[in-house]
Amino acid sequence: MNRVFNFNAGPAMLPLEVLQQVQAELLDCQNSGESILEMSHRDPIYDKINTEAQKDIKDLLGVGDDWCVMFMGGGASLQFSMVPMNFLESGKIGVYAETSSFSDKAIKEAKKEGRVEVIFSSKNEKYNRVPKLSELVLPDNTAYLHITGNNTIEGTEYQEYPDTGDVPLIADLSSDILSRPIPMEKFSLIYAGAQKNIGPAGVVVIIARRDFVKNREKTLPSMMNYEIQMNKNSTYNTPPVFGVYIVGLVAKWLKAQGGLAAMKERNESKAALVYAALDAHPDFYKAYAEKASRSFMNVTFGLPTPDLEKLFVKEAAKQNMKGLKGHRSVGGIRASIYNAMPREGCETLAAFMEDFYIKHKDEPKTEI
Amino acid sequence: MNRVFNFNAGPAMLPLEVLQQVQAELLDCQNSGESILEMSHRDPIYDKINTEAQKDIKDLLGVGDDWCVMFMGGGASLQFSMVPMNFLESGKIGVYAETSSFSDKAIKEAKKEGRVEVIFSSKNEKYNRVPKLSELVLPDNTAYLHITGNNTIEGTEYQEYPDTGDVPLIADLSSDILSRPIPMEKFSLIYAGAQKNIGPAGVVVIIARRDFVKNREKTLPSMMNYEIQMNKNSTYNTPPVFGVYIVGLVAKWLKAQGGLAAMKERNESKAALVYAALDAHPDFYKAYAEKASRSFMNVTFGLPTPDLEKLFVKEAAKQNMKGLKGHRSVGGIRASIYNAMPREGCETLAAFMEDFYIKHKDEPKTEI
Repeated sequence: MNRVFNFNAGPAMLPLEVLQQVQAELLDCQNSGESILEMSHRDPIYDKINTEAQKDIKDLLGVGDDWCVMFMGGGASLQFSMVPMNFLESGKIGVYAETSSFSDKAIKEAKKEGRVEVIFSSKNEKYNRVPKLSELVLPDNTAYLHITGNNTIEGTEYQEYPDTGDVPLIADLSSDILSRPIPMEKFSLIYAGAQKNIGPAGVVVIIARRDFVKNREKTLPSMMNYEIQMNKNSTYNTPPVFGVYIVGLVAKWLKAQGGLAAMKERNESKAALVYAALDAHPDFYKAYAEKASRSFMNVTFGLPTPDLEKLFVKEAAKQNMKGLKGHRSVGGIRASIYNAMPREGCETLAAFMEDFYIKHKDEPKTEI
Repeated sequence: MNRVFNFNAGPAMLPLEVLQQVQAELLDCQNSGESILEMSHRDPIYDKINTEAQKDIKDLLGVGDDWCVMFMGGGASLQFSMVPMNFLESGKIGVYAETSSFSDKAIKEAKKEGRVEVIFSSKNEKYNRVPKLSELVLPDNTAYLHITGNNTIEGTEYQEYPDTGDVPLIADLSSDILSRPIPMEKFSLIYAGAQKNIGPAGVVVIIARRDFVKNREKTLPSMMNYEIQMNKNSTYNTPPVFGVYIVGLVAKWLKAQGGLAAMKERNESKAALVYAALDAHPDFYKAYAEKASRSFMNVTFGLPTPDLEKLFVKEAAKQNMKGLKGHRSVGGIRASIYNAMPREGCETLAAFMEDFYIKHKDEPKTEI
């Protein structure tokens, strides 16, 4: 099998070992005589999968029993609505930092549910940076501050999280969850679509303080009520069984890799390879994100001309690298290098970038 | 591999051929060099999977381009809220027929969103039947009539659907979707969690008239707005890619079996085997559902004593039959025999029932 380096922004690569295990046991899950795809969510085998996945994620994050882990469907986009529906009390303000078109979507959904204030936006800078912490000043009556931890389209990422004191901090960590240690003491709730760093599309992981989730409004749709999901241990209704199973396998794989500190080292070192190739030729490769905001998950840059960018993507594909085209809203190139992207993928990309530079550096650099 | 006959109410069995195909191509989807579990929902391969799955479902149901097929996460339980949020206009009445605790859940969620009237309930008869069509009288100002096509817990199923004229008919067909032809001309929207008849847990299939879905309120959460999902072809956000892929494979399998008319024949004949075993000894096996309401998907019955019921489940397990315990709310035995349950499973169960009867018919039949 010719396994490609898949640089797509998500869904994204999964660890080969995990895929091989899934394949090996696909017809018979733990000698049950049935596939995990057929298994009742009330089966003791699934109960163990669900419980262990929650525990392994809590272990990785270093949180205890005052936290809960929930698995839901609907993607991070449903969380954009669930967060304000659950936590934006009347008379209070949902406060947002706008660092990407995905934060903008979260803001738009929140505005349907209550009063919202955007205290930081880098929209006029084309979302090329996240805020300095000093730029995040909370108004009185803040219900919560919502941030987007990593911005896939633009390739920016918080290197430090704000300290909001008594005000709950909520984060969409869809694109950097479990890629490095997270200072959970700062957060009340984080959520993440699994399909970038920790699993397949179709399951969202929510990690929240139990106290924060308690006492939700009874008038909320049951499926959108975090308290019900917590109390029912993510089996209020039939959960996305297969997705939870894979998230559990990835969590075990992350533990086996040495946990989040080891992943941070590995991911930073992978990103450093690509950023070094980028910074070596600043007249040719134009980094999109401000240096202080650079993401370790998505490296974004432009080339001198759109034609060269097209050629870059095309030539890279010949060397087994796929998904390098930037998001349509910013163009250019984007290399997404999540947890499961092997170091070899980043090495191959960095070498290709140097080679491509040498071949094309003397071509006309401006378009007509 | 010792493959069990899984009689669970859902998630449930999938066709072995489908599972084998999933396994064979799990590491490399259509020579892409990546797993379907890693594939971008913007990849042309997924686009084709999504398009074909929609088309195959429409072909099976015999509907054309005035209908749309949508795939979402969140399960049927999220649809319980989405239906009234989308279609229960102020000043109108959401009308429900209550035939199970699942319809009751749908009713409870609808009441959070607007005015609701329950025009039929078999709750006092322990949900042992669905209504006669003459029992469904719509009040003025009905926004829609919502029915639950098949009731897994009690084993009842509509044999004929009401004709509601200009009033939209909406149905939760989670447990009998694509098990037989459906007179789609009567419906405006049907929805079904995939995990019983057509796929794994984690994906819901919605089939709706395009005209009905158009012009939804802009204030709805985007993820809960059917119009957005329709217009974005179920890729408004990252969909449950793997679930849609399997639903697509099952739809092709159903076509290869001869389509829904053939499935109806096969499913009726499977159910007939089990009902015959049941009816052969009415003093021993007590059918739960009224005869006219009997489900072809879930056969429910009691034995003379709870101890015999426990023994029945235990002995059946020794013969490779799993998941026969009835739902906790009604007790007894439940055999769920969806599309992918092989005829052999029903034969084995029927033979076991006869054998169990002979062995235990003379035991004391009343409890202390």
